Amino acid sequence: MRSLNVALDERAYDIHIGRGLIDRGDLFASVLKRKRAVVISNEVVAPLYASRVLAALDSVGVAHQLVVLPDGEIHKDWPTLNLIFDALLGARVERSTTLIALGGGVIGDMVGFAAATYQRGVPFIQVPTTLLSQVDSSVGGKTAINHPLGKNMIGAFYQPKLVLADIDTLDTLPDRELKAGLAEVIKYGLIRDREFFDWLEINMPRLLARDTEALAFAIERSCRNKAEVVIEDETEAGVRAHLNLGHTFGHAIETGLGYGEWLHGEAVAAGTLMAAELSRRLGWLNDADVARIRRIHDAAGLALRGPKMGVERYLELMSHDKKVEAGKLRLVLLKRIGEATVFGDAPVADIAASIERCCGDA
Amino acid sequence: MRSLNVALDERAYDIHIGRGLIDRGDLFASVLKRKRAVVISNEVVAPLYASRVLAALDSVGVAHQLVVLPDGEIHKDWPTLNLIFDALLGARVERSTTLIALGGGVIGDMVGFAAATYQRGVPFIQVPTTLLSQVDSSVGGKTAINHPLGKNMIGAFYQPKLVLADIDTLDTLPDRELKAGLAEVIKYGLIRDREFFDWLEINMPRLLARDTEALAFAIERSCRNKAEVVIEDETEAGVRAHLNLGHTFGHAIETGLGYGEWLHGEAVAAGTLMAAELSRRLGWLNDADVARIRRIHDAAGLALRGPKMGVERYLELMSHDKKVEAGKLRLVLLKRIGEATVFGDAPVADIAASIERCCGDA
Ligand SMILES: NC(=O)c1ccc[n+]([C@@H]2O[C@H](COP(=O)([O-])OP(=O)(O)OC[C@H]3O[C@@H](n4cnc5c(N)ncnc54)[C@H](O)[C@@H]3O)[C@@H](O)[C@H]2O)c1
Ligand SMILES: NC(=O)c1ccc[n+]([C@@H]2O[C@H](COP(=O)([O-])OP(=O)(O)OC[C@H]3O[C@@H](n4cnc5c(N)ncnc54)[C@H](O)[C@@H]3O)[C@@H](O)[C@H]2O)c1
Ligand SMILES: [Zn+2]
Ligand SMILES: [Zn+2]
Repeated sequence: MRSLNVALDERAYDIHIGRGLIDRGDLFASVLKRKRAVVISNEVVAPLYASRVLAALDSVGVAHQLVVLPDGEIHKDWPTLNLIFDALLGARVERSTTLIALGGGVIGDMVGFAAATYQRGVPFIQVPTTLLSQVDSSVGGKTAINHPLGKNMIGAFYQPKLVLADIDTLDTLPDRELKAGLAEVIKYGLIRDREFFDWLEINMPRLLARDTEALAFAIERSCRNKAEVVIEDETEAGVRAHLNLGHTFGHAIETGLGYGEWLHGEAVAAGTLMAAELSRRLGWLNDADVARIRRIHDAAGLALRGPKMGVERYLELMSHDKKVEAGKLRLVLLKRIGEATVFGDAPVADIAASIERCCGDA
Repeated sequence: MRSLNVALDERAYDIHIGRGLIDRGDLFASVLKRKRAVVISNEVVAPLYASRVLAALDSVGVAHQLVVLPDGEIHKDWPTLNLIFDALLGARVERSTTLIALGGGVIGDMVGFAAATYQRGVPFIQVPTTLLSQVDSSVGGKTAINHPLGKNMIGAFYQPKLVLADIDTLDTLPDRELKAGLAEVIKYGLIRDREFFDWLEINMPRLLARDTEALAFAIERSCRNKAEVVIEDETEAGVRAHLNLGHTFGHAIETGLGYGEWLHGEAVAAGTLMAAELSRRLGWLNDADVARIRRIHDAAGLALRGPKMGVERYLELMSHDKKVEAGKLRLVLLKRIGEATVFGDAPVADIAASIERCCGDA
């Protein structure tokens, strides 16, 4: 088991990474205020792993209850969140009871937001079961649901008490989801960890083959990178924005096609290539850098081009993005591989040309 | 103008109390991150005061927009909250825009929760327009909406940037609402400020007559008391519970009769008399103390008895209360006038007898 601590003062918590963690009643029990927990999962993940978590809780005498939600980003919304509140209030769940999020980023974000707001805050544990949620969404305390007018528009900053990233659970993860998660892994190399980027260039095949050691290393390294950023900037006032490399372009793809058409990681991958292209036009990256960035995404089996939606449409969708300040599009770009920057002065013509170059059929 | 600061480190903020404050563009402008604000009010308060707030914002060049919600506790719910999100997203409101809550506690709690969760948090200003909201709900950062299965069950701790308690706005407040607010004013005297209790015994008639000086003094003193408690215990882990004197009984009344039948303050008043009676049975208050407590509520024109719902029903409703821990009813009681305590071991027979004695027709 690999472990790290996200050192956020009184909100500090541990992340454990390894196999068989969901069977470890002791790990769960170590952070419970009282011996009661509500496990919240979805129709896909619950049949696979809920019984193991419940057995682990049984083994340490923790009373529990299971709430199973419908699956999918489309259900990351108020009505589904309300199913959680209905269940908690129906069972008269008290403020000292801990919620356990068992699933991917959708479950993690939604249960996290439920925990942040149920009776103004109850403790919760993240048990992320997708690569994306293990390396990204379960770390950092961003929780949210979607609104018909925008993704993640309603949420809170709220930290879990513990994160258990069990590599066992990745065994059942569809290939396409694994690859989408790799987009965020690559991101850490690009924005702040050149050494990790180099490692990824060599080890991508091992990750795709789900080699335990390689996965454990990549997950830990990703979590460390994310944790460092979050500690520096818990509420996204500054450097945390770097985590959004490729995301403003990517969100335009996700929204433009309708949520769920492209996976988040797939959209981020295509968006990252647009950001890399724009960084080249601004004179920060050279052709070789851009080629390396394309190659590693290719090696991870990720899309290298965004969908053909028309540049105007991209720009319009991007202007809705949360990162807009005073009408200005602030983009995360690369100074070099391993160093990101937020830039608000990219000429629209260059943004447009970068999109144009990286979308549609090759 | 009287002022105090709620010293919560980086979340510190000022409370100003006086007349004509909603006309003071300079006060609003002093805390805005950028010159844009969204004023959120309801169908009763907006026609009375929104134009003054908007004119004040105009006077300092702040772009603004007004959102008017339906009035009433019954609308302190998700659909109404969602009207705020719809308006904010429809107007593409950015994270640096400030929300201004103009209204009573319902508007303050709901706009506060909208501010806490819109894009994971935007700044907001409280302009409380009822006595209850000026002395209680606008201070301390508790925000919430109701759920069909419970009041204030979904919410967040989230501090405003500024509170403007404008006594002008109380001119239009119905008498019944003024009296309900006085219940919370009396509460501060009872739980921690005996000197204030003494002052209230003398000055209650001035408050009922809406004497400016008396109101300003009572509002400031109440806010100071609440602020001190909140600073000591921002997230309600300990002493903040004292603010719930009379509230567990009171909530049973509000829920039992259906929200809106009795006003919150009216229910709290009756609940406080039950708590006083129970404190007497436990040997902490004497007959004279209880008589004083009855007298001051009487002087404020408040109900001295709860509705006849049957003791069993009271107890059942109270057991749903948030303050239940591990099945135990933890009640805020009085050691003496001016000192509260949380007590989890009151015999059920005594709780029942206290309710019995203080409910139904006299
Ligand atoms: N909070 C953050 O900081 C943050 C960061 C990045 C992404 N996100 C959010 O995360 C979400 C995406 O997360 P995701 O990619 O994990 O999507 P997801 O939660 O929808 O999971 C993808 C699919 O895999 C299934 N699944 C999950 N675990 C499985 C397993 N072990 N075996 C088989 N199937 C499994 C899920 O049920 C789902 O059908 C988005 O809503 C995004 O906004 C949040
Ligand atoms: N957050 C907290 O710490 C806290 C504390 C106590 C109460 N509360 C909440 O506050 C709410 C009760 O607040 P309230 O008593 O202010 O009720 P309210 O907001 O419903 O106001 C009472 C009525 O008076 C009207 N009104 C408001 N200002 C007016 C004015 N100046 N002139 C004429 N009419 C006016 C309102 O529109 C409403 O019809 C409850 O929802 C309660 O849960 C919260
Ligand atoms: Zn992402
Ligand atoms: Zn109250």
